Amino acid sequence: MQAPFTTIPTFRDALANAPGPDAAASQGAQDRNRQLTKPPGALGRLEDLAVWYAGWRGDAQPQINAPQVIVFAGNHGVCAQGVSAFPSEVTVQMVANFEHGGAAINQLSKAFGAKMDVYPLSLDTPTADFTVAPAMTEAQFVDALQIGWNAVDADADLLVTGEMGIGNTTSAAAVAAAVLGGDAADWTGRGTGVDDAGLARKTDVVGRGLALHETADPLEALRCLGGRELAAMAGAIAAARHHRIPVILDGFICCAAAASLAKAVDGALDHTVAGHLSAEGAHQQLLDGIGKAPLLNLGLRLGEGSGAALAIGVLKGAIACHSGMATFAEAGVSDG
Amino acid sequence: MQAPFTTIPTFRDALANAPGPDAAASQGAQDRNRQLTKPPGALGRLEDLAVWYAGWRGDAQPQINAPQVIVFAGNHGVCAQGVSAFPSEVTVQMVANFEHGGAAINQLSKAFGAKMDVYPLSLDTPTADFTVAPAMTEAQFVDALQIGWNAVDADADLLVTGEMGIGNTTSAAAVAAAVLGGDAADWTGRGTGVDDAGLARKTDVVGRGLALHETADPLEALRCLGGRELAAMAGAIAAARHHRIPVILDGFICCAAAASLAKAVDGALDHTVAGHLSAEGAHQQLLDGIGKAPLLNLGLRLGEGSGAALAIGVLKGAIACHSGMATFAEAGVSDG
Repeated sequence: MQAPFTTIPTFRDALANAPGPDAAASQGAQDRNRQLTKPPGALGRLEDLAVWYAGWRGDAQPQINAPQVIVFAGNHGVCAQGVSAFPSEVTVQMVANFEHGGAAINQLSKAFGAKMDVYPLSLDTPTADFTVAPAMTEAQFVDALQIGWNAVDADADLLVTGEMGIGNTTSAAAVAAAVLGGDAADWTGRGTGVDDAGLARKTDVVGRGLALHETADPLEALRCLGGRELAAMAGAIAAARHHRIPVILDGFICCAAAASLAKAVDGALDHTVAGHLSAEGAHQQLLDGIGKAPLLNLGLRLGEGSGAALAIGVLKGAIACHSGMATFAEAGVSDG
Repeated sequence: MQAPFTTIPTFRDALANAPGPDAAASQGAQDRNRQLTKPPGALGRLEDLAVWYAGWRGDAQPQINAPQVIVFAGNHGVCAQGVSAFPSEVTVQMVANFEHGGAAINQLSKAFGAKMDVYPLSLDTPTADFTVAPAMTEAQFVDALQIGWNAVDADADLLVTGEMGIGNTTSAAAVAAAVLGGDAADWTGRGTGVDDAGLARKTDVVGRGLALHETADPLEALRCLGGRELAAMAGAIAAARHHRIPVILDGFICCAAAASLAKAVDGALDHTVAGHLSAEGAHQQLLDGIGKAPLLNLGLRLGEGSGAALAIGVLKGAIACHSGMATFAEAGVSDG
């Protein structure tokens, strides 16, 4: 489906006019949950997940048959400031690895039955160095939002958005700080593993970006400080809402992009859950900022959508129980 | 395979003489992990899981193709003391539900590709009320251990042991206290949902059991205070070690049974990981007592092996990454 927007204001309109969950399906799922052969609440968070998923899918007894994982890749002009332990060439090398099926996200997508798509975004033309100019022009930003939007299969029943981009924890820290408040030092972490000197340099870079692009508009922050893969993730998350496809958010970078949506329009992330808590230092604070509790906490800090893809298994387990279990009446089990 | 023991001392010998992991496979897995296309450590705990699993399977690049879930069910004489919110009839009703595919554990087993077996253990003849006599005679105890041992498929490559038994959080609390130390109040919780008066009664019952069966022998504690399903889980966990099948431990009751093995023989749980942290109050303390950190923390308190079965997905994800990812050399990706 073609993106229903061509400018930043029309994207904001699409976001603001997105549908909510189906109240009848939510109620039906709650009613069903109470009748299943288990003590009330004994499946803990799986029960909440099932009711949430049922509401968004408009089906009180849903299935997960078509998860989609989309990995967006971008390059960052801010790498000129020495913010990463890896050279920018790794982005295109990893895209080839995704395309040949060799990365972690390929294995996790396959393990959990998800279709995986990869979108390299103008890797030969990195975004501008945000310490000297906005990362993207308005046209570049809208283009990335649209690519993300159009990448979502309308018939997917679950979405994971992942990313690859050398330098993008720097962009994500800057976006998070601009959108949620606080200093550069509050949000800047070690990414794939910079040393103490690298961390100090990265924090300084984020601080300079924040000073240059001061704005109260979360989408403008995403344009000036983010990157194409962050904008594309935001576009995809917005499209999923449009199609009522629940989303599992990944780690720090995905959540920074998502935070810009949440702060642009109240409730814009109601169709999402946080897949995991990343080992990237400020991720907990970022999850707090968007009001999400992670499903997993296993010390991952890879990106690619890997933590969220792993959480597909948890959600599949929740839906399998909810939709497959017998009721007390069906099973002839005494109800307490 | 027939159990290689016929008495409690010969079971203890089987436990003490069990094999360890394969050092070459562990080393091979560590070497492989370092070459995979990701920053070092970026898959967090998934990397540790893969190396652990590889060592026990004796294969540096293993697969998980044949997980087995076994649910043991037992009835408890201590229910005469009013320790549960549910009547004992529910145990046999839930066994029928397992056999007809209607319980949570059926859905989770199917979702994660596990074969599921159910063993009702003399449900018409509950164990003795442990406030007046040992729960099991030596013959009954050995019989339950053997049923558990023999229930394990020698060609399974992963095991989950689950349970069903009205009253068994009371037995588990008593076993945990006897094996790990502390008072009845430290270990007694609300189980499937007793009220304050029920909790006080349950705590008193556990305390009386502990006073009657004071012993320093963890297997004797399991016999006098446990139940057939706890003994069978212990037998199955021991058999898995014998066959070098890694085990995912479930919640409070499974871990209480497992703790009796750990305290009987050092390292008896080295082939196990903790699948999840249950909402049953003392489970964290029990995990601390056996030195295990849970993979999941989602508020489950159902038993049946449900939390451990959900964690099969995490382990499958870990092994899929470890064994399926390309190395830096294979993918032509720059190694930092």
